[in-house]
Amino acid sequence: MSGIEDVAREAGVSKATASRALTGHGYVAAATRARVLRVAETLGYVASSSASSLATGRTRNIGVVMPYLNRWFFAEVLEGIQEVLLAQGFDLTLYDAKPGTDGRRRVFDDFLARKRFDGLIAVALEPDDHELERLVAIGRPVVSVVGDSQDTSVVRLDDMHAARRATAHLIDLGHERIAFLGGISDQDGAHVDRERLGGYHASMRDAGLTIEHAAADVSLPGGYDAAVDLLSDPERRPTAIVAACDEVAIGAIIAARRLGIAVPAALSVVGIDNHEYAEMFGLTTLEQSPREQGAAAAELLLEQLRGAEAERTEMRLQPRLIVRSSTSTPPGTASVAVGAVP
Amino acid sequence: MSGIEDVAREAGVSKATASRALTGHGYVAAATRARVLRVAETLGYVASSSASSLATGRTRNIGVVMPYLNRWFFAEVLEGIQEVLLAQGFDLTLYDAKPGTDGRRRVFDDFLARKRFDGLIAVALEPDDHELERLVAIGRPVVSVVGDSQDTSVVRLDDMHAARRATAHLIDLGHERIAFLGGISDQDGAHVDRERLGGYHASMRDAGLTIEHAAADVSLPGGYDAAVDLLSDPERRPTAIVAACDEVAIGAIIAARRLGIAVPAALSVVGIDNHEYAEMFGLTTLEQSPREQGAAAAELLLEQLRGAEAERTEMRLQPRLIVRSSTSTPPGTASVAVGAVP
Repeated sequence: MSGIEDVAREAGVSKATASRALTGHGYVAAATRARVLRVAETLGYVASSSASSLATGRTRNIGVVMPYLNRWFFAEVLEGIQEVLLAQGFDLTLYDAKPGTDGRRRVFDDFLARKRFDGLIAVALEPDDHELERLVAIGRPVVSVVGDSQDTSVVRLDDMHAARRATAHLIDLGHERIAFLGGISDQDGAHVDRERLGGYHASMRDAGLTIEHAAADVSLPGGYDAAVDLLSDPERRPTAIVAACDEVAIGAIIAARRLGIAVPAALSVVGIDNHEYAEMFGLTTLEQSPREQGAAAAELLLEQLRGAEAERTEMRLQPRLIVRSSTSTPPGTASVAVGAVP
Repeated sequence: MSGIEDVAREAGVSKATASRALTGHGYVAAATRARVLRVAETLGYVASSSASSLATGRTRNIGVVMPYLNRWFFAEVLEGIQEVLLAQGFDLTLYDAKPGTDGRRRVFDDFLARKRFDGLIAVALEPDDHELERLVAIGRPVVSVVGDSQDTSVVRLDDMHAARRATAHLIDLGHERIAFLGGISDQDGAHVDRERLGGYHASMRDAGLTIEHAAADVSLPGGYDAAVDLLSDPERRPTAIVAACDEVAIGAIIAARRLGIAVPAALSVVGIDNHEYAEMFGLTTLEQSPREQGAAAAELLLEQLRGAEAERTEMRLQPRLIVRSSTSTPPGTASVAVGAVP
């Protein structure tokens, strides 16, 4: 079998040029590339992936680092990334970096340092200083999904706008006692929580309404537990809830049913996501598409690897309001309106 | 930097032996291994992962092929696999092989053929003949999670027993009109469905009861839709449901609430899984741990790579019944019993 040296010699170019032409990475004049490819075909050159990786420093592999696998958003992002990589002939190596685990320490200290990938996609990672140092030290392109990284290209939802819009929808319907149900933590994803809480605050402030923030773990059971507490307390019970995400919103709807509180007659609930379960629960929500975000991040990274896109890019996606049956005017409003117009 | 040739020469062994000793793969006499490791340390030998891969044919990478990422079972299995691989210094390359997609064809025809892994874990794959041929052609160890593969080692739940046990629990409570809610398809996972349906059939037959099978897509919305149909038809409406899995069972509980049918007073529901949402819905279920199944599959594969376990192994796990508040005696039973004992 011919090696890359044979191809280079026969084509009259350096080994590095032959390698660039064969892998498609880096600049080679079109005529030179065509000659190298012709020679390679004639000689029956087949790249062994390990040998090709040694010669070119390219692995045709993308690393994906994410803190959770078993959540709708992350699984959807991963599917979007995988779809693009499969179509482009790239492998996907997965690094599960659950906060506070030994595995995460190993990912940052050992696995990433092996550089067995051409570039990285970091999903909702909020690296601490040590981790950030490690990421930078790798010297490979990184694209983030979610978050506020200033160092990497980012694909993200406009989270503040999403929560503003969700809150404004309830205010437009006439609600005044509107609670925000969601988490504030230092863990991965905290940036999203802060932005969404910030959007809620901004809308409430603009309308001159009082803030009511019920902390909740950002998950379906977390939303359920927090909503049971919030709705069982007559002092705090709102007429509407803005949930940090659809899973929290669905947890709140289930809690309301359990407590005999009718949705939307006695309680309106709005989420952010358009989760696969949203339709089943009639949930009004701000739609985002994590699958498209994953695909966009993969496309962006591959463009950077081809040298076509060197600038830091930020794609900030705008959510779309989908009104279903979980939101309506506050309890009592309709009869007052009827009384006012005899 | 010293190469593996230097280590081999200095230790007085062949390059192949040095490589086996350094990677820990394949047999080397203990004394020889110790000598090679000592020499490597003295010479400051550091394996480059690409070079090491060329010399030894080992990549320290495991491929995982699964048809779905965004489902509780699969995400949990993946986390279990990743945990073991991270601890052992192995990378995980993910191949998403959604049935009927171009991506799946590419995985089997192109990606697997690159052999960029030491072994494969196949999760709930039901390969067709062409795909099976491809898997065999790779010539690398494969361990399956779920399924009835005769060619690979398998880690799986005893699905038939799980469904028998679930059905028997309802029969013990006095139910006679018991429906099975779940899917029969030709897609991946079909084997599990068949086994569980078979277990339900066996229990019903033993008790002399009539089969009622309502086909449902194996997902939460699938269970919801099928349960709405089943429960809205007075002719077919059962007093109890055996669901193919917890997501289907939870969909059925939500459907019952929507239709005003009290669970468990008017309808008992039992699932199989112990899904993360099971407790929230008070679901009686047969517990399995997909995370442990993933971890066990990874351990088994690594043992095979170390040459410690060459025999085909089948781990068939037994589920545990967890009784919660979604199952009780059939409607009317309690009052009849009270009337009978004045």
